[in-house]
Amino acid sequence: MRLGVCYYPEHWSESMWADDARRMKSLGIEQVRIGEFAWSRIEPEPGKLQWEWLDRAIDVLGAAGLQVVMSTPTATPPKWLIDQHPDILPVGADGRTRGFGSRRHYDFSSTAYFEASQRIVTLLAERYGQHAAISAWQTDNEYGCHQTVLSYSHDAVVRFRGWLQERYATIEALNTAWGTVFWSMEYTSFDQIDAPVGTVTEAHPAHRFDYHRFASSEVARYNRMQVDILRAHAPGRVMVHNFMQNFFEFDHYPVAADLDAATWDSYPLGALEEFWFAPDVKARWLRTGHPDFASFNHDLYRGMSKQPFWVMEQQPGPVNWAKWNPAPLPGMVRLWSWEAFAHGAGCVSYFRWRQCPFAQEQMHAGLNTPDNVLDIGGSEAHQVAQELASIAVPDAKVATKVALIFDYEAKWLFQIHHQGIDFEYGPLVFDYYSALRTLGFDVDVIPASAALDGYALIVVPPLPVMSGELVQRLHDSGAHVIVGPRSGSKTVELSIPANLAPGPLTAQLPMRVWRVDSMRPTTEVAVQRGAQQGVATKWRDLIEVQGATKVVASFDDGHPAIVRHQQFHYLASVFDTDFMRDYFAEVAQEAGLTVLRLADSMRISRRGGLTYVFNYGDTPAAAPAQAGARFVIGAQQVPPQGVSVFEDQQ
Amino acid sequence: MRLGVCYYPEHWSESMWADDARRMKSLGIEQVRIGEFAWSRIEPEPGKLQWEWLDRAIDVLGAAGLQVVMSTPTATPPKWLIDQHPDILPVGADGRTRGFGSRRHYDFSSTAYFEASQRIVTLLAERYGQHAAISAWQTDNEYGCHQTVLSYSHDAVVRFRGWLQERYATIEALNTAWGTVFWSMEYTSFDQIDAPVGTVTEAHPAHRFDYHRFASSEVARYNRMQVDILRAHAPGRVMVHNFMQNFFEFDHYPVAADLDAATWDSYPLGALEEFWFAPDVKARWLRTGHPDFASFNHDLYRGMSKQPFWVMEQQPGPVNWAKWNPAPLPGMVRLWSWEAFAHGAGCVSYFRWRQCPFAQEQMHAGLNTPDNVLDIGGSEAHQVAQELASIAVPDAKVATKVALIFDYEAKWLFQIHHQGIDFEYGPLVFDYYSALRTLGFDVDVIPASAALDGYALIVVPPLPVMSGELVQRLHDSGAHVIVGPRSGSKTVELSIPANLAPGPLTAQLPMRVWRVDSMRPTTEVAVQRGAQQGVATKWRDLIEVQGATKVVASFDDGHPAIVRHQQFHYLASVFDTDFMRDYFAEVAQEAGLTVLRLADSMRISRRGGLTYVFNYGDTPAAAPAQAGARFVIGAQQVPPQGVSVFEDQQ
Amino acid sequence: MRLGVCYYPEHWSESMWADDARRMKSLGIEQVRIGEFAWSRIEPEPGKLQWEWLDRAIDVLGAAGLQVVMSTPTATPPKWLIDQHPDILPVGADGRTRGFGSRRHYDFSSTAYFEASQRIVTLLAERYGQHAAISAWQTDNEYGCHQTVLSYSHDAVVRFRGWLQERYATIEALNTAWGTVFWSMEYTSFDQIDAPVGTVTEAHPAHRFDYHRFASSEVARYNRMQVDILRAHAPGRVMVHNFMQNFFEFDHYPVAADLDAATWDSYPLGALEEFWFAPDVKARWLRTGHPDFASFNHDLYRGMSKQPFWVMEQQPGPVNWAKWNPAPLPGMVRLWSWEAFAHGAGCVSYFRWRQCPFAQEQMHAGLNTPDNVLDIGGSEAHQVAQELASIAVPDAKVATKVALIFDYEAKWLFQIHHQGIDFEYGPLVFDYYSALRTLGFDVDVIPASAALDGYALIVVPPLPVMSGELVQRLHDSGAHVIVGPRSGSKTVELSIPANLAPGPLTAQLPMRVWRVDSMRPTTEVAVQRGAQQGVATKWRDLIEVQGATKVVASFDDGHPAIVRHQQFHYLASVFDTDFMRDYFAEVAQEAGLTVLRLADSMRISRRGGLTYVFNYGDTPAAAPAQAGARFVIGAQQVPPQGVSVFEDQQ
Repeated sequence: MRLGVCYYPEHWSESMWADDARRMKSLGIEQVRIGEFAWSRIEPEPGKLQWEWLDRAIDVLGAAGLQVVMSTPTATPPKWLIDQHPDILPVGADGRTRGFGSRRHYDFSSTAYFEASQRIVTLLAERYGQHAAISAWQTDNEYGCHQTVLSYSHDAVVRFRGWLQERYATIEALNTAWGTVFWSMEYTSFDQIDAPVGTVTEAHPAHRFDYHRFASSEVARYNRMQVDILRAHAPGRVMVHNFMQNFFEFDHYPVAADLDAATWDSYPLGALEEFWFAPDVKARWLRTGHPDFASFNHDLYRGMSKQPFWVMEQQPGPVNWAKWNPAPLPGMVRLWSWEAFAHGAGCVSYFRWRQCPFAQEQMHAGLNTPDNVLDIGGSEAHQVAQELASIAVPDAKVATKVALIFDYEAKWLFQIHHQGIDFEYGPLVFDYYSALRTLGFDVDVIPASAALDGYALIVVPPLPVMSGELVQRLHDSGAHVIVGPRSGSKTVELSIPANLAPGPLTAQLPMRVWRVDSMRPTTEVAVQRGAQQGVATKWRDLIEVQGATKVVASFDDGHPAIVRHQQFHYLASVFDTDFMRDYFAEVAQEAGLTVLRLADSMRISRRGGLTYVFNYGDTPAAAPAQAGARFVIGAQQVPPQGVSVFEDQQ
Repeated sequence: MRLGVCYYPEHWSESMWADDARRMKSLGIEQVRIGEFAWSRIEPEPGKLQWEWLDRAIDVLGAAGLQVVMSTPTATPPKWLIDQHPDILPVGADGRTRGFGSRRHYDFSSTAYFEASQRIVTLLAERYGQHAAISAWQTDNEYGCHQTVLSYSHDAVVRFRGWLQERYATIEALNTAWGTVFWSMEYTSFDQIDAPVGTVTEAHPAHRFDYHRFASSEVARYNRMQVDILRAHAPGRVMVHNFMQNFFEFDHYPVAADLDAATWDSYPLGALEEFWFAPDVKARWLRTGHPDFASFNHDLYRGMSKQPFWVMEQQPGPVNWAKWNPAPLPGMVRLWSWEAFAHGAGCVSYFRWRQCPFAQEQMHAGLNTPDNVLDIGGSEAHQVAQELASIAVPDAKVATKVALIFDYEAKWLFQIHHQGIDFEYGPLVFDYYSALRTLGFDVDVIPASAALDGYALIVVPPLPVMSGELVQRLHDSGAHVIVGPRSGSKTVELSIPANLAPGPLTAQLPMRVWRVDSMRPTTEVAVQRGAQQGVATKWRDLIEVQGATKVVASFDDGHPAIVRHQQFHYLASVFDTDFMRDYFAEVAQEAGLTVLRLADSMRISRRGGLTYVFNYGDTPAAAPAQAGARFVIGAQQVPPQGVSVFEDQQ
Repeated sequence: MRLGVCYYPEHWSESMWADDARRMKSLGIEQVRIGEFAWSRIEPEPGKLQWEWLDRAIDVLGAAGLQVVMSTPTATPPKWLIDQHPDILPVGADGRTRGFGSRRHYDFSSTAYFEASQRIVTLLAERYGQHAAISAWQTDNEYGCHQTVLSYSHDAVVRFRGWLQERYATIEALNTAWGTVFWSMEYTSFDQIDAPVGTVTEAHPAHRFDYHRFASSEVARYNRMQVDILRAHAPGRVMVHNFMQNFFEFDHYPVAADLDAATWDSYPLGALEEFWFAPDVKARWLRTGHPDFASFNHDLYRGMSKQPFWVMEQQPGPVNWAKWNPAPLPGMVRLWSWEAFAHGAGCVSYFRWRQCPFAQEQMHAGLNTPDNVLDIGGSEAHQVAQELASIAVPDAKVATKVALIFDYEAKWLFQIHHQGIDFEYGPLVFDYYSALRTLGFDVDVIPASAALDGYALIVVPPLPVMSGELVQRLHDSGAHVIVGPRSGSKTVELSIPANLAPGPLTAQLPMRVWRVDSMRPTTEVAVQRGAQQGVATKWRDLIEVQGATKVVASFDDGHPAIVRHQQFHYLASVFDTDFMRDYFAEVAQEAGLTVLRLADSMRISRRGGLTYVFNYGDTPAAAPAQAGARFVIGAQQVPPQGVSVFEDQQ
């Protein structure tokens, strides 16, 4: 567990570098990321490489005892390169080329850019691969940011055709898999297939689904190219990429599999403003962020990272890119930092060392203000650095018996084929996750392909495409399995299974979803489970139970709302939080787990024998520590925006 | 009165066809529509015609005793044809070509597509024109769906110039008619005229109005081409097209005039969600549809159909294409079917036989689920088939003394030149219609050109362009005539009449609209008629009465709200439902009609001596039958979502 | 003080002209504007000039004793010119060329159009420059209307590069000024720089800011070209342009500096509907307009006009171009006219003489209805003409000790770089202005470059770019200076000042804004000043006071809300109206001014020893006249929508 910071020597007078490095070190920072937007300074004109300033910058940092995370600068190709190869630019769904003048102006499928990237990454790796001060390499920056996963360029379409040919072998197989006979959309050659945009009405969903898969695989291909070059020249260095928060547009698992550690960029206040939260939720957590938001991402990235994950960019104060950008409450930068460590982070790195007085992000806070005065975030980082010493087993693993299965393709499927326009994957997953957290559980967020041994409770948010193999492994795990609506409703090619939903799941949970009922936001259906009342919204699977499957809860028009067969549970709808949480709690207890119901603003995490307690609320609250617990940070009473860490008596 | 179904043999294994046909027949279905999206199966490559599968499909259906409605497949030109002639594709108002990959990707003005359509329709007509099993032909599918009436292609603009030349003869005449002197928009040649889009601020309204008329006439021209070919090869077959619900973007009257029967596609729940209804209205009728929606369309299409109109596609369960797609209540498929017959339908045909498990509409219900189990809609269709026998005079005409004048051009005029952004034609017409229906009237929805003899009450929703000839015929009909605001306010070229509004109507109703007052949604003006209070919204014609015209109601600032001269009544605003309905009732009684005020959820229709009663509500309600009435279906007490049919004592 | 009217002889039969002129004169109108859209009538084909009709029109008007304001017709280039030079057309931010068919379809940077304009203006000036009936010339019409200031054409980009080269001399200077090192946006040549649109994410703010400055300077260049030609041929004539209401997209000050009088087009009801006012405000002033809206524009244009400003177009009844277009209450046309004169207008000219029955504006009222009957607006104009005689010193100057600084660049900066998406310049300025007006003050709206002598109170709404020179002049004025939030926060190149905000202002007001807190609309922060409570919204500067600066008010979390040093006052946030107004009142009193708190619907203005009183409300109210005051118009009791004018006893 250590602290880091993001730094841009090219933005500042060289005369400031040494003092910056000294002050970082004295603040307790051990690691500095640099270089990810520096191409135009490294190569201001084609072939004219200016390494010297960068040599000096790395040397200054290294000399101060800081470890350097070097980045490839491919997120911002310089103007001369774009002018040489305009086909580097991505093309939007509206058919317009997206131009130079900000960042990420490249198409993952561009052949010209693939080659230009190979070249610059090789040059960088050759020069710095074995530099003693450099401990890690970051590829590019925030793949996919600004909706750049999907591009509709000529290069992309050509590569998509090749991807399809590889997947389906023959055009007849593709026609059958997609069902192109519908609306006479049949193809006689792969060369006839375009990108699924600009159609008169909605494009074919299987076409869209495959285009998204293709585009996702292009990200992995591009990243692998960089990692391969870097590994060849930089042996022993940690390979990372900084993923984004709640960003699901490409499948992160294969990308992370090529890296040593997944890292992510955590901006709790910007996220609260920009994501799906209701206005009252946004108002409530305005200056703290939602208590489960960063946690969810920590658990997600931990689940794909070989080494302990990092937070590569931690919000240090107000940001500039949300619609509104409030200041966090004092204490929150410390709280967020500890929360990351509690969830298993190996490093928390703040973005950025000093607020930059110019260009697009000039209103983004840093640890220091532009006039080089330490800001609140800087002081809190210093406090965290001092407190880190109090943790005995800093790099312990997070261990839990509760898992939640996350699936990127499911996200795309909901997007492409929603059937109810506000029925989205991300918020559904988050609500399931949040319910588990408020019951006091640590949660492993894992892919469907992960090993399931050792879990007592596995929650499967709506997973339209379920393989028989997954169903078998869920069964073999011995865990209780709670499955969300719409699960098993689609084949891998986005058709309806021959036996209807839930498809292969019926092997363990005999039932048939004979109809789907999607509803306007104002529509609520009452639901009842024993004495407990609830409301269901948005979506209902209308179920015919089969075999020994039992109805656990029912809608007021008589249709089953929750059904169960042995350890498999199926939720037919989106229930209100209390109704869902109570059922989760009951199943968890049946699975032998201890439920700890937390106040809305309290959260706990366990790592290495310690329990970390976070108070997101406005009033002091008691940590759920047993008598005799030893507090290593804070005390039983946790102040607002406070953190306590305790060790229960052995 | 008979039942039909829409079927896609090309979507299913040929091994299922015979059983499908047998089950249709046993369900009581007599007619099957096929082929409207099958081009890529008929002609998978240019010139390679594969008739055999279609021969067999028709034979299987015919052998089962089913009548086949054959469709031309022109709504979905195959990819190879688009690749040969990219100019087939329509162009949007944004200047972008709308691509292949869904349906209706053709421009009505494309010369290449006109010729390609002639060819495929001729081939089809030659092969099947006299096939014994084929009783009717459908041209294309849902003209105009997905906003395809208006296209802005090169071909369209060139043909528009020709259309203008024919209409105006000289460019001077056009300049004068449009008033292009305003803003120096004068032309010196027809070749200078472009489509009225992409201008810096709003395009000239007369230009837009004529472009819409032109585009509408292109639909009629295209359809006529198909009908002419079919009639030449398929003598005695019924020529139909399936129009859409509340779709007003082209003038349906000339298209219907070329057909034998108008048919339309009825989706009450999708319509409720997608059309203009307020959220509370959408919530109230969520699973039944609005009680007047299908009725309005029945009456509209009856008014343009030479033979009894059909419902070509009847919603059988949830659909897939609205923002949300709830399940209808049990009973509604039966209710909607009987409602169609009560309004004069000759056939109700369900869409579709079996839910298709793939492609864009995979979530659209059928009479059977994808696993080939009879769904609720299928059971209710079967019940209707059995009940049909109880109707003595199934093909009787609907006869009523109440007419409502409908005008497609009025719709476009409101759209192009609204003066108050929420002042739309469709909802206004619907409110007038709905008021008449809740007073117990059957309503003929007719064009302004229809014969008016025999009516006692003619309601004219806002009709900006009124000819003197129409005014004279309204007078000569002897009926009471209620005219909505903004009527007679425009000349045929979208100018203000020399005598101001209501233009030619002043011959019967002396008055002068000297000003128009358009108001924000929150603005209400009180209105008073004797002791009755009401509120007016959206729009006010400020009227100066002339001659013997009397003020019947006034706004609270003293301006006339309703004026009247003899049997002509003019409404100066949009009144609340009660205020408007009470006035309609009073005029109707003066016109010698019997008013029957119905509960909000009850509706009645009369056809062939029978009264059909529909309960859209949630509680049982009494049918308005006199003592001694004979119930042929149901009973005096009509259950929720129920239907009763009775014959009054002679 | 005189009345005028806008007239289009080309829209009407020549047989009507003489009678129109006679009736204008008899109504009391002295001035007629013509010609601004008449190009296609003057030159129907290239080089075919038809002057005769225009000669006759001018002669007819002149013969009736009317003064003619002749306009250049460049706002509407004819079709043949566009066909000759398609590069005249502007290009939108979406890259699409904006076409012919409405008006203002030209790019200020188009070389072809610059030359074509020179030619037509020269021809017109040569023919009519010294015509005895012509007293003034209007250049073009409403520069910038329909978002035409910013264009993204090839010509515009080429000229932008030249503008940049002139501003920065070297590309290195530009790179440094903008901070292009951020995100590798560095340029090696001016020729690499494009327009700042179509980027993947937001374009560089300095790039956008300079593009806006460039585009604004293009308007001034274009206007100067016209004025130079006209002055050469029309000596002694008044040069004017009709600016728009609350239109801030180009800097009006340099344009006005080239003219003799600024004139503007006043549409209070259309403005209320289209601008930022909240729904309840729109409802309250539906038929009167907001009481401060026209006033603000009067004061703004007075502040840039060498001679008394005019209202070139005064709304005479309902308009056609807002989303809804209600009728003004009787009396309002008179009230608006007197309000203009009270604020210093030299002329009020109504738009238009007669409602035009065709084309885009056919629903725009005139002084006469299309059937040539005098409308309410006409009668009220007549009343004003008669009342004008009662004013003794009609052309007196408005004199006040209260100034408000207005800055066009500030508007663009907020737009480009908002940090809180609803934090806009226009509404903020308006709220400051409105607060001053309801305290009974006349207000000079002035540019930052204006002389400040003689003011007792200077209000500076948020002014991000403040020069040290301005700060010094503010200090030297001796006035109390109230400065809004975000002031001094940016350098001229849109960076953060080295000493942070408020930059140069700290010389007079020692403080440091170390953080900015931007907030969602629902967020309120309590603020306290002594016993007074208020709420702050949208934005907070978090301030560290320095030196002798005192905290006058604080937020509930302890941060300063208002700070003050000697006569400089800084508001750190957007306060509720009462809180802000009370502070203004207190400072004004300290500055020696007399505060007169007016009812919400009452406003007063003083000019030439007279006090003008306007009642925007629905009930009679008393004029704030001392006993013995002499009423030259109206009386002490001002009826709803009424005007009184009195002279206090000497």
